Amino acid sequence: MSEKKIPYKIYLSEDEMPRVWYNLRADMANKPAPLLNPATLQPMTAAELEGVFCKELVAQELDDHTPYFEIPREIRDFYKMYRPSPLVRAYCLEEKLDTPAKIYYKFEGNNTSGSHKLNSAIAQAYYAKRQGLTGVTTETGAGQWGTALSMACGYLGLDCRVYMVKCSYEQKPFRREVMKVYGASVTPSPSETTEVGRKILAQFPGTTGSLGCAISEAVEAAVSTPGYRYVLGSVLNQVLLHQSIIGLEAKTALDKYGVKPDVVIGCAGGGSNLGGLIAPFMGEKLRGEADYRFIAVEPASCPSFTRGAYRYDFCDTGMVCPLAKMYTLGSGFIPSADHAGGLRFHGMSSVLSQLYDDGLMEAVAVKQTDVFAAAEEFARVEGILPAPESSHAILAAINEAKRCRETGEEKTILFGLTGTGYFDLVAYGKFHGGEMHNFAPTDEDIARSLAQLPKVD
Amino acid sequence: MSEKKIPYKIYLSEDEMPRVWYNLRADMANKPAPLLNPATLQPMTAAELEGVFCKELVAQELDDHTPYFEIPREIRDFYKMYRPSPLVRAYCLEEKLDTPAKIYYKFEGNNTSGSHKLNSAIAQAYYAKRQGLTGVTTETGAGQWGTALSMACGYLGLDCRVYMVKCSYEQKPFRREVMKVYGASVTPSPSETTEVGRKILAQFPGTTGSLGCAISEAVEAAVSTPGYRYVLGSVLNQVLLHQSIIGLEAKTALDKYGVKPDVVIGCAGGGSNLGGLIAPFMGEKLRGEADYRFIAVEPASCPSFTRGAYRYDFCDTGMVCPLAKMYTLGSGFIPSADHAGGLRFHGMSSVLSQLYDDGLMEAVAVKQTDVFAAAEEFARVEGILPAPESSHAILAAINEAKRCRETGEEKTILFGLTGTGYFDLVAYGKFHGGEMHNFAPTDEDIARSLAQLPKVD
Repeated sequence: MSEKKIPYKIYLSEDEMPRVWYNLRADMANKPAPLLNPATLQPMTAAELEGVFCKELVAQELDDHTPYFEIPREIRDFYKMYRPSPLVRAYCLEEKLDTPAKIYYKFEGNNTSGSHKLNSAIAQAYYAKRQGLTGVTTETGAGQWGTALSMACGYLGLDCRVYMVKCSYEQKPFRREVMKVYGASVTPSPSETTEVGRKILAQFPGTTGSLGCAISEAVEAAVSTPGYRYVLGSVLNQVLLHQSIIGLEAKTALDKYGVKPDVVIGCAGGGSNLGGLIAPFMGEKLRGEADYRFIAVEPASCPSFTRGAYRYDFCDTGMVCPLAKMYTLGSGFIPSADHAGGLRFHGMSSVLSQLYDDGLMEAVAVKQTDVFAAAEEFARVEGILPAPESSHAILAAINEAKRCRETGEEKTILFGLTGTGYFDLVAYGKFHGGEMHNFAPTDEDIARSLAQLPKVD
Repeated sequence: MSEKKIPYKIYLSEDEMPRVWYNLRADMANKPAPLLNPATLQPMTAAELEGVFCKELVAQELDDHTPYFEIPREIRDFYKMYRPSPLVRAYCLEEKLDTPAKIYYKFEGNNTSGSHKLNSAIAQAYYAKRQGLTGVTTETGAGQWGTALSMACGYLGLDCRVYMVKCSYEQKPFRREVMKVYGASVTPSPSETTEVGRKILAQFPGTTGSLGCAISEAVEAAVSTPGYRYVLGSVLNQVLLHQSIIGLEAKTALDKYGVKPDVVIGCAGGGSNLGGLIAPFMGEKLRGEADYRFIAVEPASCPSFTRGAYRYDFCDTGMVCPLAKMYTLGSGFIPSADHAGGLRFHGMSSVLSQLYDDGLMEAVAVKQTDVFAAAEEFARVEGILPAPESSHAILAAINEAKRCRETGEEKTILFGLTGTGYFDLVAYGKFHGGEMHNFAPTDEDIARSLAQLPKVD
């Protein structure tokens, strides 16, 4: 390779780090549908939400018109421990694929939580602390969010109780241990510690759990413990707001070099990474200033965009949460336990759901073994061992770059590399050992689950 | 915290990345003693060494007068995947310790190998590839070196056979798995696959192995396989040469801000990180241009500097390697298996041994539980979960900063944060569970081991 005009890694200086988060909803003509109170079917009020969430976060959750929110200095100081994160030009991958495409990825894995989740964790913990709360509860699937929240709470001196989806709890013992280093308590979900947990266990003995179950337990624990609130690592508008720092940094870095992506690709579970990465680009598209293609990549085992319905549904299995309008497989949907990593949530961010429904974004579902093959190909040329979640985006980016090889198009591809796979080596081992399989729900599975949706629309 | 003049993280641009390695030996008045042929007790010739090591690396090993070696472009390209590495100002740690000291650390953990080892792995793999070899063999203790070499070989398409110290092989199953992702074969050592392994197993049945055993096996495998050479991750002069990039980057970054460290601290097992970190600073000291304090931090369980002898010894347990003059506990010394992490080598780099013997460097031995307590304190305020090895340096830096709190001195402390502890969570778990103990050899243990040293001096 010859010397490059664009460096392998573009690092913004700390001065160039965004001082505001961008609220994509402000530029949406069709606003995402409001959260509904399941009892009254009326939009949730701030007062109702403040029993579950911190006051400041409720304000962010409900605000669909303020375009920018200032990032408090304390949060920016914390961000500086691991941000700005690098935007990497994937020269080695391009060469390996022999493609005329130019591939960039925004790498969010260079922190101990191993993912982008820390961006919202510190924000949510900060507002809880500022409100004078004692602690927070949450759920975690693959473990990134729980680790991130543990780190943020450890830093601020806030109690942290994590309900961890049981199959991840068992598959990823080291994740539990990291959370403990940062002082969190970790309970496998469903558990006997909550009413909703006991109910789910009675109904589905031996269940390996789901994010939906764990959310129900964490919410119950929060509302029944004085001085506690619940925090969530994805799906919510506030989380996408905090995660906009990913896209804002990526865009600033690309702008510095006069680069404009043709297509922006992200993995999608609840939508936190994808929503954050695309935010400023989608904003330009919504305002008619530029055009981009956006691709959400989801697992074939949990295909909410590509096979779900755009309906009001509960975010949790226990049906204790407000109703959100979203692409959903039904809150009773539990993805195959053999699926490694996260992206196992039955629904999708309301913001992203509306954009997808408006035809502003594409979605594709991919098979697990293809994802791990892409992960390994990537690791060997780019060095980084990617998280299985992130590897969904890697696979889609590689496929796009291969199409460019066929057509000769010099497309610029930007994708989100949300994290590292250091805690996913059981899954990598299964892949190597030929013990990894592909699962997808049948049409009947999905129809059965969707039939249970609340009758709202 | 207010806005800072010096950023939290100083990233050099890729253009500022060093284009040469610095050979500290060129500035040493007392050169490190040469390797000796154990049969003749004469200095090893290039021809003799080339049966074990690549030609180019032998030239680097023997050259004690050329101050700079150009880094080949291919290696610089690889470096750009994860370098320049950040120099971090530990503002949060300073605040937590309430110290007037200014603490900086050079963080080498932001790559999948999780440590600085990749700096020499890519260099050694590159020269092997350029010589037209088929593959390389090596040993690994904690697993960082094996992972690093696997990554380098995976990138260049070179076979890689790793002998992994048995207790690490068992304690760190995920390390094995990462190496396999990168295409390496991994054998627990001592093994039945080599003559020397079978001999050691017969003599010490049930041994959990040591780096010294694993080196013997890897060397035997290399010399008995056509097209193979042996590579080593520490101790050797060539390794310290490659690792000088750590110190060169750190010094360039500090110089940009007009900062001069008073004390430079690094953990020391075989000496690769410490030798690399201190190189350009020690060079200034040797040339009389500046003065610095240097502190080597070693585990109390394997205290080669503080309790060993400066003598000619074998680098390996099987006594198949050349003799090196170094601070050593004796090649038969096997540190307690309860000691977590690396730094378990019985000897120390000849370069560092000579500097220490000349009074140019200090050394301190620390207890394992103190190391993990420092690691956890660091993780909670600086975010990064440190490797146990690196945490030896953290502990010494914290102790130095606490002394500054007592005396009011505003010292500038630079330490090497060699890597991350993502694969060390079994050890962290033991620490939390109160199951971690401190071991140190008795004087009799060391005397018995030293009595076996070859009679050379």
